[in-house]
Amino acid sequence: MRKARVAYQGNVFCAEECLEGLKLQDGRIISVDDVVWLPPVEVGTIFALGLNYADHASEISFKAPEEPLVFLKGKNALIGHNGQSRRPKDVELMHYECELAVIIGKKARNVTRMHANDYIAGYTVVNDYAIRDYLENYYRPNLPVKNRDGLTPIGPWFVNRDSINNPMNLTMRTYVNGEIKQEGNTKDMVFDIPYLIEYLSSFMTLNKNDVILTGTPKGTVNVVEGDEVVTEIEEVGSLKNTIVGDDVFSR
Amino acid sequence: MRKARVAYQGNVFCAEECLEGLKLQDGRIISVDDVVWLPPVEVGTIFALGLNYADHASEISFKAPEEPLVFLKGKNALIGHNGQSRRPKDVELMHYECELAVIIGKKARNVTRMHANDYIAGYTVVNDYAIRDYLENYYRPNLPVKNRDGLTPIGPWFVNRDSINNPMNLTMRTYVNGEIKQEGNTKDMVFDIPYLIEYLSSFMTLNKNDVILTGTPKGTVNVVEGDEVVTEIEEVGSLKNTIVGDDVFSR
Repeated sequence: MRKARVAYQGNVFCAEECLEGLKLQDGRIISVDDVVWLPPVEVGTIFALGLNYADHASEISFKAPEEPLVFLKGKNALIGHNGQSRRPKDVELMHYECELAVIIGKKARNVTRMHANDYIAGYTVVNDYAIRDYLENYYRPNLPVKNRDGLTPIGPWFVNRDSINNPMNLTMRTYVNGEIKQEGNTKDMVFDIPYLIEYLSSFMTLNKNDVILTGTPKGTVNVVEGDEVVTEIEEVGSLKNTIVGDDVFSR
Repeated sequence: MRKARVAYQGNVFCAEECLEGLKLQDGRIISVDDVVWLPPVEVGTIFALGLNYADHASEISFKAPEEPLVFLKGKNALIGHNGQSRRPKDVELMHYECELAVIIGKKARNVTRMHANDYIAGYTVVNDYAIRDYLENYYRPNLPVKNRDGLTPIGPWFVNRDSINNPMNLTMRTYVNGEIKQEGNTKDMVFDIPYLIEYLSSFMTLNKNDVILTGTPKGTVNVVEGDEVVTEIEEVGSLKNTIVGDDVFSR
């Protein structure tokens, strides 16, 4: 069963997918067209992986890292399904990045890879846009590349851990205006999900609703104002987002 | 007037400094010895500056950056005044870093330096410990250096913006076991506070209770188990912390 968080008629609800659309926590059945989709959980700390697919690393001219290249993101960056992301004025390269997001289910400290699965609540889809113009080097990216408001769509669904057959073998695809542009598989991660949990929990605590964005495969291309971008992961969901101009938002 | 957040007899309270110690929000006057000090505000996103004092940059063999070198930190890293910070086993260098922390007072987007002060709620003191062993280079530090649990003491006081005469001219000192080890002044920041707010708000939104850790001057030295470390900033406060061994905490 897939779950969501949505705003509807003046309130925020948890909802479940059903045949007719969405079943709200109060029992009402409504259409998906009548809601605003929010990030599917109330997100804690956001961890993101750089260069966690070797083919993407070579695509942007860097070698794959020897240990996980992890950076943090602020919550200002998140927006829900069907949202609008602003392309900054005067930039050359705005790249989508289809990523499997792992949602932590409980406090994790010194967890070995063998037990890592117990600490996962579930999964969702992320599009971790990068403003490539500002990327300086191989190391953790700066905030103008990866921390702008609303440039990290997440959702629509939270999918329970046990609903996914094998998270390390899921097809990932990105469509721009209906045309397939990026295709990969989570099996090609340099550092797999159990290792990422072992690594992070070896020196710090992961908490419930912390999210790990596990990186993107090759095939990132520039998107422009007006583009409709769909990042899709097998068994997890299909996340839609529209690119708008920088002047769409007032201050 | 200086304010704090403390735990006392089963609850968390806001409190004010008074002659006898602390005045809780419910009117009771209590001793500072009877409370557990918490971070002085409920912190949002944590921004930290690398190499924002030229003398410290040269001390650790890097040049000062040409634009602000900002990285994010997770809330897992914070602990309050009088807390214990764990020195990881088998590391060579654990350095304190006395820093002035700026607490944002309201939503800030596209703020010019001239108006930056309006968006500051106040200030507190931070000791942003670094596990120097893991530092790879000039760029944003990795999580094993800067994101361990409880290695960022903050507090004890929240000091209102208008109580500080000039935040860009405050003496900073660190004492280890009572002996002065680090001395500097906020006037030596490479990028001053108004510029940091202008810079960050130019590409993202700063929100109420976001915190900017503005960097440390030279004079960082290794601390070991048993050390008592006090980071002190003129007009803001004096933050005490004790170093304990890695085995003090159970899993």
